[in-house]
Amino acid sequence: MTFSITILGSSSALPTPSRFSTAQALNVLERFFLIDCGEGTQIQLNKYKIRTARINHIFISHLHGDHFLGIFGLISSMNLLGRKLPLCIHGPFKLKDLINAFISTMDRGINFEIIFEPLHYNGLELIYEDEKLTIESFPLRHRVPTCGFLFREKTRLRNLKGKVIKELNIPIKSLQSIKEGNDYTDVDGRLINNKQLTIDPPKPRAYAFVSDTAKNPTIVPYINNIDLLYHEATYADEGKKRAKETGHSTARQAGEIAKKAGVGKLILGHFSNRYKNLDLLQKEAQEEFKNTELALDGKVFDIEIIGVK
Amino acid sequence: MTFSITILGSSSALPTPSRFSTAQALNVLERFFLIDCGEGTQIQLNKYKIRTARINHIFISHLHGDHFLGIFGLISSMNLLGRKLPLCIHGPFKLKDLINAFISTMDRGINFEIIFEPLHYNGLELIYEDEKLTIESFPLRHRVPTCGFLFREKTRLRNLKGKVIKELNIPIKSLQSIKEGNDYTDVDGRLINNKQLTIDPPKPRAYAFVSDTAKNPTIVPYINNIDLLYHEATYADEGKKRAKETGHSTARQAGEIAKKAGVGKLILGHFSNRYKNLDLLQKEAQEEFKNTELALDGKVFDIEIIGVK
Repeated sequence: MTFSITILGSSSALPTPSRFSTAQALNVLERFFLIDCGEGTQIQLNKYKIRTARINHIFISHLHGDHFLGIFGLISSMNLLGRKLPLCIHGPFKLKDLINAFISTMDRGINFEIIFEPLHYNGLELIYEDEKLTIESFPLRHRVPTCGFLFREKTRLRNLKGKVIKELNIPIKSLQSIKEGNDYTDVDGRLINNKQLTIDPPKPRAYAFVSDTAKNPTIVPYINNIDLLYHEATYADEGKKRAKETGHSTARQAGEIAKKAGVGKLILGHFSNRYKNLDLLQKEAQEEFKNTELALDGKVFDIEIIGVK
Repeated sequence: MTFSITILGSSSALPTPSRFSTAQALNVLERFFLIDCGEGTQIQLNKYKIRTARINHIFISHLHGDHFLGIFGLISSMNLLGRKLPLCIHGPFKLKDLINAFISTMDRGINFEIIFEPLHYNGLELIYEDEKLTIESFPLRHRVPTCGFLFREKTRLRNLKGKVIKELNIPIKSLQSIKEGNDYTDVDGRLINNKQLTIDPPKPRAYAFVSDTAKNPTIVPYINNIDLLYHEATYADEGKKRAKETGHSTARQAGEIAKKAGVGKLILGHFSNRYKNLDLLQKEAQEEFKNTELALDGKVFDIEIIGVK
């Protein structure tokens, strides 16, 4: 029941040996996703022992080099490592041309299919769904079209009260309906309320990745009450003017968004290389939203399952 | 009088955290060059404290991702760091299109000129020259058009024997001609042989970078007697068949080339990720050519000045 985010890069445009460009690897219920793919992402995946073969979907937030330049090397290495499964890339439509131009230089091409899904920018949009999970994109406010991504578990089936089910001799064929929340009518025509038969499932977990953006309160409804929010925090307060000019946020602004949205925890990244020490950024964000951590390279954030009631 | 090579990456196609993709930084007489630019090169330059602003020429041996994918991020970072000087890139002509396609995605473009010099493949070709140095390219045998590069100091002016010059009262205006190797005729019409007035200058130093190639003895005349040879050595003896299939060399074959060419020292790189320990590759090369070292990430090879006679 893993829901885990590994930070592969925490730098903004200029990477350093300890802070690579933006990338995050997600394991959500044993589905592996990559969000952004800055230069060196494949090296970080190798370092943190995440097998590239398990990644089937990559989400690229926008077409600035520090968010996508690692995708070419990753595609090349996936191919060398024998990949056969299709790889789905969700990103700005121009990225498709860049990828095709790169692949056209490969003397042997690649042995797997790339399915390219262009992003759109008209509000919350479903871009992935399976029986347990949805992923949605939502537009941000940056210098080029940019999306954030929201990963959300679906509500699970209700948990049966085993003892009660047994006492009432409810047949197996009726259990699925009860798990789905329906009441039960027994052989004598007696209605038994679902609440007597089940307990609430765990709260569905959710994570949002808020990539490069100026302060943008329009996203608050999308990320309301989620467990974990990554929000870019390129600058400290002293860089507020520069943040505005370049379409970025300060750590404090990230804290303000987290507070408005009532998230469980905030993690900060995309730090300008002007900050060697990031304590100030954490402190300024914490003045707005206490439960804030730094999303440094190699850190892993797990969202635990919490049963409700 | 520096002639120094810093290894930035020593891996073949699949980089690892300790062996990045191919790239080398050269300081030849305070001219800074970059040879190849695999993914993460800018991170390595940062790690080894080589300022990107000082690099004015980049040489890309061929269009396989592990030799050029770092160039986009490097161009982007040079721009962010305020570069104004032109940057000259020597590489396969298709690289120009890839670079232009990348730059076209940058919302603010770049603030410096890129001068693109396509490589040719017709033998030894002069691709750079200044008053102290030449750089030549020469074709290799790989799956795609590939060049090696030869960096060679020009012969310096002869060194004056100060004491003799003084005793003979030779006027300053005649010294340049004597340094250039000419004899001197004094005011009495007496001819003085140049050998009496000068000593030989130091031997011009030379370094060759032999990128991806199957064993290729046709390069031997180009690299004859050079001080330092980098030669790819993707495989050990056990991988000889694979080397042939993929257009690569074994370490032993690199040693054979070094021996034939009578170079001063051989350094090996471009190691397959199948070799965690490289001692075997060094040993096999040394069986052919004793003075062989591994060109591991972060190693610096200096070519010292040696006076002749």
